[in-house]
Amino acid sequence: MMEKPTVGVIGLGAMGAGMAHTLVQRGYAVVACDARAGVADAFAAAHAGEGAGARAASSPAALAAQVQVVVSVVVNAAQTEDVLFGTNGAAAAMKPGSVFVMCSTVAPEWSRAMEARLEALGVHYIDAPISGGAAKAAAGEMTMMSSAKPAAYVAAGGALEGMAGKVYRLGDRAGLGSAVKVVNQLLAGVHIAAAAEAMAFGVRQGIAAADLYEVITHSAGNSWMFENRMAHVLNGTLAGKDDGQGNLRVNSAVDIFVKDLGLVHDAAHAMKFPLPLASAALQQFTAASAAGLGRQEDAAVISLFPKA
Amino acid sequence: MMEKPTVGVIGLGAMGAGMAHTLVQRGYAVVACDARAGVADAFAAAHAGEGAGARAASSPAALAAQVQVVVSVVVNAAQTEDVLFGTNGAAAAMKPGSVFVMCSTVAPEWSRAMEARLEALGVHYIDAPISGGAAKAAAGEMTMMSSAKPAAYVAAGGALEGMAGKVYRLGDRAGLGSAVKVVNQLLAGVHIAAAAEAMAFGVRQGIAAADLYEVITHSAGNSWMFENRMAHVLNGTLAGKDDGQGNLRVNSAVDIFVKDLGLVHDAAHAMKFPLPLASAALQQFTAASAAGLGRQEDAAVISLFPKA
Repeated sequence: MMEKPTVGVIGLGAMGAGMAHTLVQRGYAVVACDARAGVADAFAAAHAGEGAGARAASSPAALAAQVQVVVSVVVNAAQTEDVLFGTNGAAAAMKPGSVFVMCSTVAPEWSRAMEARLEALGVHYIDAPISGGAAKAAAGEMTMMSSAKPAAYVAAGGALEGMAGKVYRLGDRAGLGSAVKVVNQLLAGVHIAAAAEAMAFGVRQGIAAADLYEVITHSAGNSWMFENRMAHVLNGTLAGKDDGQGNLRVNSAVDIFVKDLGLVHDAAHAMKFPLPLASAALQQFTAASAAGLGRQEDAAVISLFPKA
Repeated sequence: MMEKPTVGVIGLGAMGAGMAHTLVQRGYAVVACDARAGVADAFAAAHAGEGAGARAASSPAALAAQVQVVVSVVVNAAQTEDVLFGTNGAAAAMKPGSVFVMCSTVAPEWSRAMEARLEALGVHYIDAPISGGAAKAAAGEMTMMSSAKPAAYVAAGGALEGMAGKVYRLGDRAGLGSAVKVVNQLLAGVHIAAAAEAMAFGVRQGIAAADLYEVITHSAGNSWMFENRMAHVLNGTLAGKDDGQGNLRVNSAVDIFVKDLGLVHDAAHAMKFPLPLASAALQQFTAASAAGLGRQEDAAVISLFPKA
């Protein structure tokens, strides 16, 4: 057995915090950093004395100097670029032979280019978008859709399995993991838009929303997203749920799918590949955002439809 | 306990044959008829001596004269009209106080009108589209999406539960059952078209189809239809499977969704309700049919996309 590598986690948002927590539980020494002041210190304090230890770093560069594996769990490609090449970025501080694990949802082409850019610095790269939500990340049950050169997987020394319930290995170069994540987001976005359209159409015809939910979730028209997201419609929580401190929090916002279906569109457009369903769904999320609903639950696309 | 009514089943196709079989297993006396010569006789012979008995009738009129409950399991509204009002149709032969159970996928407005038309003849009506496929129908596990006046349910004397695993009661007038079925078909059609689009897009980017299937069916992008229909793509059985007698049989053809999404479109158009996703899906099935694929598996919409 190889010794477990020390792992740095950059970005302690809903997913990153759960992944860092899981790594500590599974015996990895963890160094954490976050752009928001105090967040990494609070994480380190909360896990003091557990397993192989948790500590905070003040910047991506300070973190990178202490670890073999850097895991980046930020919002998008732009933030990932900043983590690596911005002020106090990780890239220049990473040790030769260490590995950068990219967990954001990004364009496959962008991820391929980043693999080459880090390789030129002697740093391995794993294309590793994630899926499953905050609760699964915290429980160590999330899914990772990865692809990388074999040497990069070796350099990660088991850290991927240390964060996830299931690590898919989808090929020996960056981009394939991101391509699968993009395809997943295509389906997720289309299914949410279709669920909203179907629910609104049924209610408009006089069917009780709860009846429709009950029948569809037990029929061939069901999808993971219909079941998950139409619950927000039934509960009347499209604007978010109170977090106990007077703030409305949403699970996943309309603007996330404006972004993700935008990625889907750009990737397909670049290869002249037609996506009629995804295009219709992108227009629905864009219309909802234009109507001022960008920060509401993604299921708020249902608000575009006429009421009974 | 009321005595079990004698039940007539018109149309021994994939669904009707299973439903008639289930009724016999559950102790109902069954009279069957089918437009194809010999089919009802074969059914009666196969169930000779079982339970309360099975016999064949030569026409809907001959069947209707012998039963309290007439169950119609034909392809569409036009065939249902013919069953009731065509040559040797059931309507004129049905006893006052008996009940007609309409199991086809039809426009909700059409079903409402049929309720009124039969009521004028003293016959009850249950709007009762079904879902689940042939295997579930034969096992007594299919779902029924029903709506009817309370007196019609009483007149059916338990026959609905005698055929189905789950009977949803969605309201006290015809049309609501059909509306829910139409919404289910909207989602089913969109999900098949989206599954094909996503699978083709992923494969075009170099992802192995089997990998994509494995990841998506374990992720938030999954749908009942993705899981069920993309199996035909992986297995290469879009043109159908040999039935052992040299005939290619499909599970559900492209042209079924040209029809069903056409119903969805017509119902929405009549009430000026926009359905952007369903419209895009209808165009995909229509394009596949126009390309000569109408009798292939519905998942053959994937053939519209460019290959890698």
